[in-house]
Amino acid sequence: MALASDESVPRKAPQFDDAFRDKLAELLAWRRDVRRFRADPLDEAELEALFDLAELSPSVGNSQPWRWVRFDGAAARAAVRASFARCNAAALADQSGGRAALYATLKLEGLDRAPAQFAVFCDRATAQGHGLGAATMPEALDYSVVAQIVAFWIAARARGLGLGWVSILDPADVAKAAGAPPDWRFVAYLCIGLPSEEHDVPELQRAGWQARTGRGRTVARV
Amino acid sequence: MALASDESVPRKAPQFDDAFRDKLAELLAWRRDVRRFRADPLDEAELEALFDLAELSPSVGNSQPWRWVRFDGAAARAAVRASFARCNAAALADQSGGRAALYATLKLEGLDRAPAQFAVFCDRATAQGHGLGAATMPEALDYSVVAQIVAFWIAARARGLGLGWVSILDPADVAKAAGAPPDWRFVAYLCIGLPSEEHDVPELQRAGWQARTGRGRTVARV
Repeated sequence: MALASDESVPRKAPQFDDAFRDKLAELLAWRRDVRRFRADPLDEAELEALFDLAELSPSVGNSQPWRWVRFDGAAARAAVRASFARCNAAALADQSGGRAALYATLKLEGLDRAPAQFAVFCDRATAQGHGLGAATMPEALDYSVVAQIVAFWIAARARGLGLGWVSILDPADVAKAAGAPPDWRFVAYLCIGLPSEEHDVPELQRAGWQARTGRGRTVARV
Repeated sequence: MALASDESVPRKAPQFDDAFRDKLAELLAWRRDVRRFRADPLDEAELEALFDLAELSPSVGNSQPWRWVRFDGAAARAAVRASFARCNAAALADQSGGRAALYATLKLEGLDRAPAQFAVFCDRATAQGHGLGAATMPEALDYSVVAQIVAFWIAARARGLGLGWVSILDPADVAKAAGAPPDWRFVAYLCIGLPSEEHDVPELQRAGWQARTGRGRTVARV
Protein backbone atom coordinates (compact mmCIF):
# COMPACT_ATOMS: atom_id res chain seq x y z
CA MET A 1 0.00 0.00 0.00
CA ALA A 2 1.56 3.28 -1.10
CA LEU A 3 0.20 6.78 -0.71
CA ALA A 4 0.01 9.06 -3.73
CA SER A 5 3.14 11.09 -4.20
CA ASP A 6 1.21 13.68 -6.21
CA GLU A 7 -2.19 14.21 -4.70
CA SER A 8 -3.50 16.14 -7.71
CA VAL A 9 -3.35 12.98 -9.82
CA PRO A 10 -6.57 10.98 -9.40
CA ARG A 11 -5.91 7.41 -8.37
CA LYS A 12 -8.18 4.48 -8.81
CA ALA A 13 -10.03 3.66 -5.61
CA PRO A 14 -9.57 0.10 -4.40
CA GLN A 15 -12.43 -2.37 -4.50
CA PHE A 16 -13.37 -4.53 -1.53
CA ASP A 17 -15.07 -7.87 -2.11
CA ASP A 18 -17.27 -10.15 -0.01
CA ALA A 19 -14.30 -12.28 1.07
CA PHE A 20 -12.55 -9.21 2.47
CA ARG A 21 -15.73 -7.97 4.16
CA ASP A 22 -16.27 -11.39 5.79
CA LYS A 23 -12.73 -11.32 7.12
CA LEU A 24 -13.18 -7.74 8.35
CA ALA A 25 -16.31 -8.86 10.20
CA GLU A 26 -14.28 -11.62 11.85
CA LEU A 27 -11.64 -9.08 12.80
CA LEU A 28 -14.21 -6.82 14.45
CA ALA A 29 -15.80 -9.81 16.19
CA TRP A 30 -12.48 -10.99 17.64
CA ARG A 31 -11.13 -7.57 18.59
CA ARG A 32 -11.19 -7.69 22.37
CA ASP A 33 -10.23 -5.40 25.19
CA VAL A 34 -7.32 -7.55 26.36
CA ARG A 35 -6.19 -7.72 30.00
CA ARG A 36 -4.23 -11.00 29.91
CA PHE A 37 -0.93 -10.65 28.10
CA ARG A 38 2.16 -12.71 27.44
CA ALA A 39 5.29 -10.90 28.53
CA ASP A 40 7.08 -11.32 25.16
CA PRO A 41 8.46 -7.99 23.95
CA LEU A 42 6.90 -6.39 20.90
CA ASP A 43 8.51 -6.16 17.51
CA GLU A 44 9.29 -2.44 17.31
CA ALA A 45 9.01 -2.41 13.51
CA GLU A 46 5.50 -3.79 13.85
CA LEU A 47 4.63 -1.02 16.28
CA GLU A 48 5.93 1.57 13.82
CA ALA A 49 3.83 0.04 11.05
CA LEU A 50 0.77 0.37 13.28
CA PHE A 51 1.55 4.03 13.91
CA ASP A 52 1.86 4.55 10.15
CA LEU A 53 -1.64 3.18 9.69
CA ALA A 54 -3.12 5.01 12.68
CA GLU A 55 -1.90 8.29 11.25
CA LEU A 56 -4.33 7.83 8.36
CA SER A 57 -7.14 8.24 10.87
CA PRO A 58 -9.59 11.15 10.51
CA SER A 59 -9.35 14.16 12.81
CA VAL A 60 -11.41 17.29 13.11
CA GLY A 61 -9.94 19.98 10.85
CA ASN A 62 -7.17 17.44 10.12
CA SER A 63 -5.79 18.61 13.46
CA GLN A 64 -4.07 15.29 14.30
CA PRO A 65 -4.15 16.17 18.01
CA TRP A 66 -2.98 12.74 19.22
CA ARG A 67 0.08 12.64 21.47
CA TRP A 68 1.40 9.27 22.62
CA VAL A 69 3.75 9.02 25.58
CA ARG A 70 5.41 5.67 26.03
CA PHE A 71 5.57 4.38 29.57
CA ASP A 72 8.67 2.22 29.84
CA GLY A 73 10.32 3.33 33.07
CA ALA A 74 9.74 1.63 36.41
CA ALA A 75 8.78 4.87 38.15
CA ALA A 76 6.27 5.91 35.49
CA ARG A 77 4.67 2.49 35.43
CA ALA A 78 4.53 2.34 39.21
CA ALA A 79 2.71 5.67 39.26
CA VAL A 80 0.06 4.27 36.92
CA ARG A 81 -0.32 1.07 38.92
CA ALA A 82 -0.72 3.09 42.11
CA SER A 83 -3.34 5.30 40.48
CA PHE A 84 -5.23 2.24 39.28
CA ALA A 85 -5.09 0.64 42.73
CA ARG A 86 -6.52 3.76 44.37
CA CYS A 87 -9.26 4.31 41.78
CA ASN A 88 -10.19 0.64 41.65
CA ALA A 89 -10.50 0.40 45.45
CA ALA A 90 -12.82 3.41 45.38
CA ALA A 91 -14.87 1.87 42.56
CA LEU A 92 -15.16 -1.40 44.48
CA ALA A 93 -16.33 0.49 47.57
CA ASP A 94 -19.08 2.08 45.45
CA GLN A 95 -20.51 -1.30 44.41
CA SER A 96 -22.98 -2.96 46.73
CA GLY A 97 -23.71 -6.54 47.78
CA GLY A 98 -23.35 -9.20 45.11
CA ARG A 99 -22.09 -6.64 42.61
CA ALA A 100 -19.16 -5.84 44.91
CA ALA A 101 -18.25 -9.52 45.27
CA LEU A 102 -18.39 -9.95 41.49
CA TYR A 103 -16.46 -6.72 40.88
CA ALA A 104 -13.67 -7.98 43.14
CA THR A 105 -13.20 -11.05 40.91
CA LEU A 106 -12.85 -9.11 37.65
CA LYS A 107 -9.51 -8.66 35.95
CA LEU A 108 -9.68 -5.11 34.67
CA GLU A 109 -6.19 -4.35 33.38
CA GLY A 110 -2.96 -5.84 32.07
CA LEU A 111 -0.63 -3.30 33.68
CA ASP A 112 1.47 -6.03 35.28
CA ARG A 113 2.56 -7.78 32.08
CA ALA A 114 1.82 -5.82 28.91
CA PRO A 115 5.21 -5.20 27.29
CA ALA A 116 4.27 -1.89 25.65
CA GLN A 117 2.27 0.78 27.43
CA PHE A 118 1.26 4.26 26.33
CA ALA A 119 -0.63 7.18 27.78
CA VAL A 120 -2.48 8.90 24.96
CA PHE A 121 -3.37 12.57 25.22
CA CYS A 122 -5.26 15.11 23.15
CA ASP A 123 -3.44 18.38 22.52
CA ARG A 124 -6.39 20.69 22.98
CA ALA A 125 -4.15 23.68 22.15
CA THR A 126 -2.78 22.43 18.85
CA ALA A 127 -2.57 25.01 16.05
CA GLN A 128 -2.98 22.22 13.49
CA GLY A 129 -6.41 22.38 11.90
CA HIS A 130 -6.71 26.07 12.77
CA GLY A 131 -9.69 25.35 15.01
CA LEU A 132 -11.87 24.10 12.17
CA GLY A 133 -14.80 22.06 13.47
CA ALA A 134 -13.83 22.45 17.11
CA ALA A 135 -15.39 25.82 17.98
CA THR A 136 -18.79 24.60 19.17
CA MET A 137 -17.53 21.13 20.09
CA PRO A 138 -13.93 21.28 21.38
CA GLU A 139 -14.42 17.66 22.50
CA ALA A 140 -14.28 16.75 18.80
CA LEU A 141 -10.50 16.98 19.27
CA ASP A 142 -10.65 14.30 21.97
CA TYR A 143 -12.89 12.21 19.73
CA SER A 144 -10.27 12.42 16.97
CA VAL A 145 -7.77 10.86 19.35
CA VAL A 146 -10.24 8.09 20.19
CA ALA A 147 -10.77 7.44 16.48
CA GLN A 148 -7.03 7.08 15.99
CA ILE A 149 -6.76 4.64 18.90
CA VAL A 150 -9.55 2.52 17.38
CA ALA A 151 -7.77 2.36 14.02
CA PHE A 152 -4.59 1.34 15.82
CA TRP A 153 -6.54 -1.27 17.83
CA ILE A 154 -8.16 -2.88 14.78
CA ALA A 155 -4.90 -2.94 12.84
CA ALA A 156 -3.09 -4.39 15.87
CA ARG A 157 -5.57 -7.25 16.13
CA ALA A 158 -5.02 -8.03 12.44
CA ARG A 159 -1.38 -8.66 13.44
CA GLY A 160 -2.38 -10.84 16.38
CA LEU A 161 -1.63 -8.12 18.93
CA GLY A 162 -3.98 -7.32 21.78
CA LEU A 163 -4.79 -3.93 23.25
CA GLY A 164 -6.36 -3.13 26.60
CA TRP A 165 -7.77 0.31 27.37
CA VAL A 166 -7.50 1.31 31.03
CA SER A 167 -9.80 4.09 32.24
CA ILE A 168 -9.83 3.32 35.98
CA LEU A 169 -7.21 5.98 36.56
CA ASP A 170 -7.01 9.53 37.80
CA PRO A 171 -6.13 11.60 34.70
CA ALA A 172 -4.08 13.97 36.86
CA ASP A 173 -1.86 11.11 38.05
CA VAL A 174 -1.15 9.95 34.50
CA ALA A 175 -0.55 13.49 33.21
CA LYS A 176 1.96 14.07 36.02
CA ALA A 177 3.81 10.80 35.36
CA ALA A 178 3.90 11.63 31.64
CA GLY A 179 5.11 15.17 32.16
CA ALA A 180 2.21 16.32 30.00
CA PRO A 181 1.70 20.04 29.34
CA PRO A 182 -1.41 21.58 30.92
CA ASP A 183 -3.27 21.76 27.60
CA TRP A 184 -3.05 18.02 27.03
CA ARG A 185 -6.17 16.12 27.98
CA PHE A 186 -5.67 12.51 29.04
CA VAL A 187 -7.71 10.17 26.82
CA ALA A 188 -6.52 6.61 27.41
CA TYR A 189 -3.86 4.41 28.92
CA LEU A 190 -3.13 1.52 26.57
CA CYS A 191 -1.59 -1.86 27.31
CA ILE A 192 -0.31 -3.61 24.19
CA GLY A 193 1.14 -7.08 23.69
CA LEU A 194 0.45 -10.63 22.62
CA PRO A 195 -2.75 -11.87 24.27
CA SER A 196 -2.46 -15.01 26.38
CA GLU A 197 -6.03 -16.03 25.42
CA GLU A 198 -8.29 -15.24 22.49
CA HIS A 199 -12.05 -14.83 22.67
CA ASP A 200 -14.89 -13.54 20.57
CA VAL A 201 -17.08 -12.75 23.58
CA PRO A 202 -16.20 -9.78 25.83
CA GLU A 203 -14.56 -10.69 29.14
CA LEU A 204 -17.22 -8.75 31.07
CA GLN A 205 -19.93 -10.80 29.38
CA ARG A 206 -18.16 -14.09 30.13
CA ALA A 207 -17.72 -12.99 33.76
CA GLY A 208 -21.44 -12.25 34.11
CA TRP A 209 -20.98 -8.51 34.58
CA GLN A 210 -22.74 -7.09 31.52
CA ALA A 211 -23.93 -8.87 28.39
CA ARG A 212 -24.40 -7.36 24.98
CA THR A 213 -27.94 -6.12 24.61
CA GLY A 214 -28.30 -5.09 20.98
CA ARG A 215 -30.13 -1.96 22.09
CA GLY A 216 -29.22 1.49 20.91
CA ARG A 217 -28.82 0.98 17.16
CA THR A 218 -31.65 3.22 16.05
CA VAL A 219 -33.75 4.30 18.99
CA ALA A 220 -35.88 6.93 17.24
CA ARG A 221 -36.64 8.63 13.99
CA VAL A 222 -37.39 12.31 13.66
CA MET B 1 -19.27 -14.83 10.23
CA ALA B 2 -21.29 -16.32 13.09
CA LEU B 3 -21.01 -15.62 16.78
CA ALA B 4 -20.64 -18.50 19.21
CA SER B 5 -23.97 -19.75 20.46
CA ASP B 6 -22.33 -21.16 23.59
CA GLU B 7 -19.68 -18.80 24.85
CA SER B 8 -18.21 -21.35 27.28
CA VAL B 9 -16.98 -23.44 24.34
CA PRO B 10 -13.58 -22.19 23.18
CA ARG B 11 -13.54 -21.37 19.50
CA LYS B 12 -10.54 -21.22 17.25
CA ALA B 13 -9.44 -17.63 16.69
CA PRO B 14 -9.24 -16.59 13.03
CA GLN B 15 -5.90 -15.95 11.38
CA PHE B 16 -5.21 -12.86 9.32
CA ASP B 17 -2.61 -12.95 6.56
CA ASP B 18 -0.50 -10.37 4.77
CA ALA B 19 -2.96 -10.11 1.89
CA PHE B 20 -5.76 -9.22 4.31
CA ARG B 21 -3.56 -6.75 6.18
CA ASP B 22 -2.57 -5.04 2.91
CA LYS B 23 -6.22 -4.67 2.00
CA LEU B 24 -7.05 -3.37 5.48
CA ALA B 25 -4.30 -0.78 5.05
CA GLU B 26 -5.89 0.28 1.76
CA LEU B 27 -9.25 0.52 3.49
CA LEU B 28 -7.86 2.80 6.19
CA ALA B 29 -6.02 4.88 3.59
CA TRP B 30 -9.18 5.41 1.50
CA ARG B 31 -11.57 5.99 4.40
CA ARG B 32 -12.42 9.65 4.02
CA ASP B 33 -14.64 12.13 5.79
CA VAL B 34 -17.07 12.49 2.89
CA ARG B 35 -18.99 15.70 2.19
CA ARG B 36 -19.92 15.09 -1.45
CA PHE B 37 -22.64 12.51 -1.83
CA ARG B 38 -24.80 11.05 -4.54
CA ALA B 39 -28.48 11.28 -3.67
CA ASP B 40 -29.20 7.54 -4.30
CA PRO B 41 -31.06 6.05 -1.36
CA LEU B 42 -29.24 3.53 0.80
CA ASP B 43 -29.96 -0.17 0.88
CA GLU B 44 -31.60 -0.55 4.29
CA ALA B 45 -30.40 -4.16 4.65
CA GLU B 46 -26.86 -2.91 4.18
CA LEU B 47 -27.39 -0.33 6.91
CA GLU B 48 -28.66 -3.04 9.25
CA ALA B 49 -25.60 -5.17 8.51
CA LEU B 50 -23.40 -2.22 9.43
CA PHE B 51 -25.24 -1.80 12.73
CA ASP B 52 -24.72 -5.51 13.43
CA LEU B 53 -20.99 -5.05 13.01
CA ALA B 54 -20.84 -1.78 14.93
CA GLU B 55 -22.47 -3.46 17.91
CA LEU B 56 -19.35 -5.60 18.27
CA SER B 57 -17.48 -2.46 19.20
CA PRO B 58 -15.86 -2.16 22.64
CA SER B 59 -17.44 0.00 25.32
CA VAL B 60 -16.41 0.86 28.84
CA GLY B 61 -17.91 -1.72 31.22
CA ASN B 62 -19.66 -3.16 28.14
CA SER B 63 -22.09 -0.26 28.67
CA GLN B 64 -23.04 0.05 24.98
CA PRO B 65 -24.13 3.67 25.58
CA TRP B 66 -24.62 4.51 21.88
CA ARG B 67 -28.01 5.88 20.86
CA TRP B 68 -28.66 6.65 17.20
CA VAL B 69 -31.52 8.88 16.16
CA ARG B 70 -32.31 8.88 12.48
CA PHE B 71 -33.00 12.27 10.94
CA ASP B 72 -35.39 11.72 8.05
CA GLY B 73 -38.03 14.38 8.47
CA ALA B 74 -37.88 17.74 6.76
CA ALA B 75 -38.28 19.71 10.00
CA ALA B 76 -35.54 17.78 11.82
CA ARG B 77 -33.14 18.13 8.91
CA ALA B 78 -33.93 21.83 8.53
CA ALA B 79 -33.10 22.36 12.21
CA VAL B 80 -29.68 20.78 11.69
CA ARG B 81 -29.00 22.80 8.55
CA ALA B 82 -29.96 26.00 10.38
CA SER B 83 -27.68 25.11 13.30
CA PHE B 84 -24.82 24.43 10.91
CA ALA B 85 -25.39 27.73 9.07
CA ARG B 86 -25.28 29.70 12.32
CA CYS B 87 -22.23 27.91 13.73
CA ASN B 88 -20.37 28.02 10.44
CA ALA B 89 -20.96 31.74 10.02
CA ALA B 90 -19.58 32.30 13.51
CA ALA B 91 -16.55 30.11 12.76
CA LEU B 92 -15.90 32.02 9.53
CA ALA B 93 -16.08 35.31 11.43
CA ASP B 94 -13.41 33.99 13.83
CA GLN B 95 -10.94 33.35 11.00
CA SER B 96 -8.77 36.22 9.83
CA GLY B 97 -7.39 37.43 6.51
CA GLY B 98 -6.39 34.75 4.04
CA ARG B 99 -7.61 32.02 6.35
CA ALA B 100 -11.13 33.48 6.25
CA ALA B 101 -11.10 33.58 2.45
CA LEU B 102 -9.91 29.98 2.32
CA TYR B 103 -12.40 28.88 4.99
CA ALA B 104 -15.23 30.34 2.92
CA THR B 105 -14.33 28.05 -0.01
CA LEU B 106 -14.33 24.82 1.99
CA LYS B 107 -17.15 22.31 1.70
CA LEU B 108 -17.59 21.14 5.25
CA GLU B 109 -20.70 18.97 5.20
CA GLY B 110 -22.99 16.88 3.05
CA LEU B 111 -26.23 17.82 4.79
CA ASP B 112 -27.87 18.82 1.51
CA ARG B 113 -27.64 15.44 -0.23
CA ALA B 114 -26.67 12.56 2.09
CA PRO B 115 -29.59 10.13 1.94
CA ALA B 116 -29.18 8.81 5.50
CA GLN B 117 -28.45 11.05 8.44
CA PHE B 118 -28.15 10.25 12.14
CA ALA B 119 -27.51 12.15 15.33
CA VAL B 120 -25.53 9.92 17.66
CA PHE B 121 -25.72 10.41 21.40
CA CYS B 122 -24.10 8.92 24.48
CA ASP B 123 -26.50 7.85 27.22
CA ARG B 124 -24.45 9.08 30.15
CA ALA B 125 -27.10 7.69 32.56
CA THR B 126 -27.24 4.14 31.24
CA ALA B 127 -27.40 1.40 33.87
CA GLN B 128 -25.65 -0.97 31.46
CA GLY B 129 -22.10 -1.60 32.58
CA HIS B 130 -22.99 -0.67 36.18
CA GLY B 131 -20.60 2.25 36.09
CA LEU B 132 -17.53 0.08 35.61
CA GLY B 133 -14.60 2.09 34.27
CA ALA B 134 -16.52 5.35 34.15
CA ALA B 135 -16.17 6.60 37.73
CA THR B 136 -12.98 8.64 37.34
CA MET B 137 -13.48 9.19 33.60
CA PRO B 138 -17.19 9.49 32.74
CA GLU B 139 -16.06 10.70 29.31
CA ALA B 140 -15.03 7.08 28.64
CA LEU B 141 -18.73 6.55 27.88
CA ASP B 142 -18.57 9.19 25.13
CA TYR B 143 -15.37 7.60 23.84
CA SER B 144 -17.18 4.26 23.58
CA VAL B 145 -19.70 5.90 21.27
CA VAL B 146 -16.89 7.34 19.16
CA ALA B 147 -15.29 3.90 18.93
CA GLN B 148 -18.56 2.45 17.67
CA ILE B 149 -18.91 5.18 15.06
CA VAL B 150 -15.38 4.45 13.82
CA ALA B 151 -16.14 0.72 13.45
CA PHE B 152 -19.28 1.65 11.52
CA TRP B 153 -17.31 4.08 9.37
CA ILE B 154 -14.61 1.56 8.44
CA ALA B 155 -17.14 -1.17 7.68
CA ALA B 156 -19.21 1.28 5.62
CA ARG B 157 -16.20 2.16 3.47
CA ALA B 158 -15.60 -1.55 2.83
CA ARG B 159 -19.08 -1.54 1.26
CA GLY B 160 -18.31 1.55 -0.81
CA LEU B 161 -20.35 3.84 1.45
CA GLY B 162 -19.09 7.21 2.60
CA LEU B 163 -19.58 8.85 5.97
CA GLY B 164 -19.18 12.48 6.91
CA TRP B 165 -18.95 13.60 10.53
CA VAL B 166 -20.39 17.06 11.16
CA SER B 167 -19.28 18.85 14.34
CA ILE B 168 -19.98 22.45 13.33
CA LEU B 169 -23.27 22.34 15.19
CA ASP B 170 -24.69 23.49 18.49
CA PRO B 171 -25.27 20.28 20.48
CA ALA B 172 -28.35 21.85 22.10
CA ASP B 173 -29.96 22.41 18.69
CA VAL B 174 -29.44 18.79 17.65
CA ALA B 175 -30.60 17.39 21.00
CA LYS B 176 -33.79 19.45 20.74
CA ALA B 177 -34.49 18.34 17.17
CA ALA B 178 -33.86 14.71 18.20
CA GLY B 179 -36.04 14.92 21.29
CA ALA B 180 -33.09 13.58 23.27
CA PRO B 181 -33.43 13.09 27.06
CA PRO B 182 -31.31 15.44 29.21
CA ASP B 183 -28.80 12.72 30.08
CA TRP B 184 -27.90 12.10 26.46
CA ARG B 185 -24.74 13.82 25.32
CA PHE B 186 -24.52 14.70 21.64
CA VAL B 187 -21.45 13.09 20.06
CA ALA B 188 -21.78 13.32 16.28
CA TYR B 189 -24.06 14.10 13.38
CA LEU B 190 -23.39 11.63 10.58
CA CYS B 191 -24.14 11.92 6.87
CA ILE B 192 -24.08 8.58 5.08
CA GLY B 193 -24.39 7.71 1.42
CA LEU B 194 -22.56 6.85 -1.77
CA PRO B 195 -19.67 9.27 -2.27
CA SER B 196 -19.64 11.21 -5.52
CA GLU B 197 -15.83 11.21 -5.54
CA GLU B 198 -13.18 8.98 -3.98
CA HIS B 199 -9.83 10.13 -2.66
CA ASP B 200 -7.00 8.85 -0.54
CA VAL B 201 -5.92 12.34 0.54
CA PRO B 202 -8.07 14.28 3.03
CA GLU B 203 -10.19 17.04 1.50
CA LEU B 204 -8.71 19.62 3.91
CA GLN B 205 -5.21 18.68 2.73
CA ARG B 206 -6.20 18.93 -0.95
CA ALA B 207 -7.80 22.32 -0.25
CA GLY B 208 -4.61 23.63 1.38
CA TRP B 209 -6.14 24.00 4.84
CA GLN B 210 -4.10 21.51 6.86
CA ALA B 211 -1.75 18.79 5.67
CA ARG B 212 -0.85 15.63 7.49
CA THR B 213 2.23 16.19 9.59
CA GLY B 214 3.21 12.78 10.95
CA ARG B 215 3.83 14.34 14.34
CA GLY B 216 2.39 12.98 17.54
CA ARG B 217 3.07 9.24 17.20
CA THR B 218 5.39 8.92 20.14
CA VAL B 219 6.32 12.30 21.48
CA ALA B 220 8.04 11.21 24.70
CA ARG B 221 9.14 8.25 26.77
CA VAL B 222 8.97 8.15 30.53
